[in-house]
Amino acid sequence: MDEDSTPMIETLGAGTVHLVGAGPGDPDLITVRGARLLELADVVLYDRLVHPDLLERTPPATLRIFVGKRCGKASITQEEINRTMIRYARAGSRVVRLKGGDPFVFGRGGEECLELARAGIPFEVVPGVSSATSVPAYAGIPVTHRDVASAFTVISGHLQGGSAPHDWRTLAASPTLVVLMGLRNLQEIATQLVAAGKPSDTPVAVVRAGTHESQETVTGALENIADLASHLEPPAVIVIGAVAAYHEEMAWFDPMRHASRSAGALG
Amino acid sequence: MDEDSTPMIETLGAGTVHLVGAGPGDPDLITVRGARLLELADVVLYDRLVHPDLLERTPPATLRIFVGKRCGKASITQEEINRTMIRYARAGSRVVRLKGGDPFVFGRGGEECLELARAGIPFEVVPGVSSATSVPAYAGIPVTHRDVASAFTVISGHLQGGSAPHDWRTLAASPTLVVLMGLRNLQEIATQLVAAGKPSDTPVAVVRAGTHESQETVTGALENIADLASHLEPPAVIVIGAVAAYHEEMAWFDPMRHASRSAGALG
Repeated sequence: MDEDSTPMIETLGAGTVHLVGAGPGDPDLITVRGARLLELADVVLYDRLVHPDLLERTPPATLRIFVGKRCGKASITQEEINRTMIRYARAGSRVVRLKGGDPFVFGRGGEECLELARAGIPFEVVPGVSSATSVPAYAGIPVTHRDVASAFTVISGHLQGGSAPHDWRTLAASPTLVVLMGLRNLQEIATQLVAAGKPSDTPVAVVRAGTHESQETVTGALENIADLASHLEPPAVIVIGAVAAYHEEMAWFDPMRHASRSAGALG
Repeated sequence: MDEDSTPMIETLGAGTVHLVGAGPGDPDLITVRGARLLELADVVLYDRLVHPDLLERTPPATLRIFVGKRCGKASITQEEINRTMIRYARAGSRVVRLKGGDPFVFGRGGEECLELARAGIPFEVVPGVSSATSVPAYAGIPVTHRDVASAFTVISGHLQGGSAPHDWRTLAASPTLVVLMGLRNLQEIATQLVAAGKPSDTPVAVVRAGTHESQETVTGALENIADLASHLEPPAVIVIGAVAAYHEEMAWFDPMRHASRSAGALG
């Protein structure tokens, strides 16, 4: 559509904050626009799960500020992140706020934009490839599939904290349930879903470090997945539902082959 | 994480099919990897909603095959698409299957991969930015938001056809419901949700031509959105839930300003 539209390229505005999704891990899964904005940034505020190769796209003079968590502890509060973005934008800097995955799928991107809007700072959202769909895809799992799943639901696996409690009966009825940041609560999640009526033999796949060469997938069912995946460390994406079984037939990503890729090969 | 991993770049394999997500519309929202694969493709099979600028990334000798629908009628059957991909891959071609949005979010990407796997053809999935999250983002709507929406559900608005019927009671209970391809059935969707217990004053946003310079957003509630949006033509993404109200405060994308962007400005 829009055969006559001009390419959607824009000058990176001085005094503007660009919320950029870094994608799920593989640095080549950032968008073309996101990559270009990094190359022009004066200041980058970045989270923990952002691949270091992305930061190398920035010019040497770019100020790179780490604002993620170390050992589960925030290095800087959300209020300080907001204040920092606003301060640099007001000083005329071109600010990139680089967030893992998509800035508007969990991760508080909405809150950051709201603060920018209220402060009168111009901002742009550059969507990213979300881990919720791409990490399953890297394990050969489509979140929707004809006749098997006509809907999918995405939740955060953080069961405590500021957000509203989950309605497990509703979640149990979703054909495909994708859980982000849920590895540490996997047993609790499985127990709640079975208690809410989900069959205990429902297929489950846990994909750790998706899109990275250390990617690892463990499959099982609600009744045994917490045991089977107990050796995994975060980050991981959990897929619950019939589609998880497609991993068997459709897994295509070979981390070993991946490790031997070289940048030179593409010319 | 994975500080020591090599860049995830790979030769485009002769005889391989690469299922590439084109993103939601704006051609700069394709991934860096997807863009690079287009530059190396021998054959591209593309759908209707793929931006023409993306095809211009392919070399002059690339065979470009349109496999989308015209006037709602398929120009080629799914079986023919599968056969065509397999034939060119077996002949040693580098095949890109370019799909709108993300190949594994509706759009039958899973079925295509299954056929490739069964035919023994090597394939790769290059995830794309899904319209389900990015089109709302371009209207200033985060699909999740602290205290407001701790989960989101995505469905297809095609109410007939091969897929399983929707469970409206479950969908009505999701804090954020995103409907793709649902504009023609908007009245029916609103009626079903209210009948299933969703309050009739639930905020709704309809975003037409999201990420394009012709983007248009109409907001209302379940009880009146079908009337308010009756002038819109597909494609559109529908967001149902409290987050839709953030459009008011967070809309940032200005199609008029966008239209004046020029490629030269980025240097």
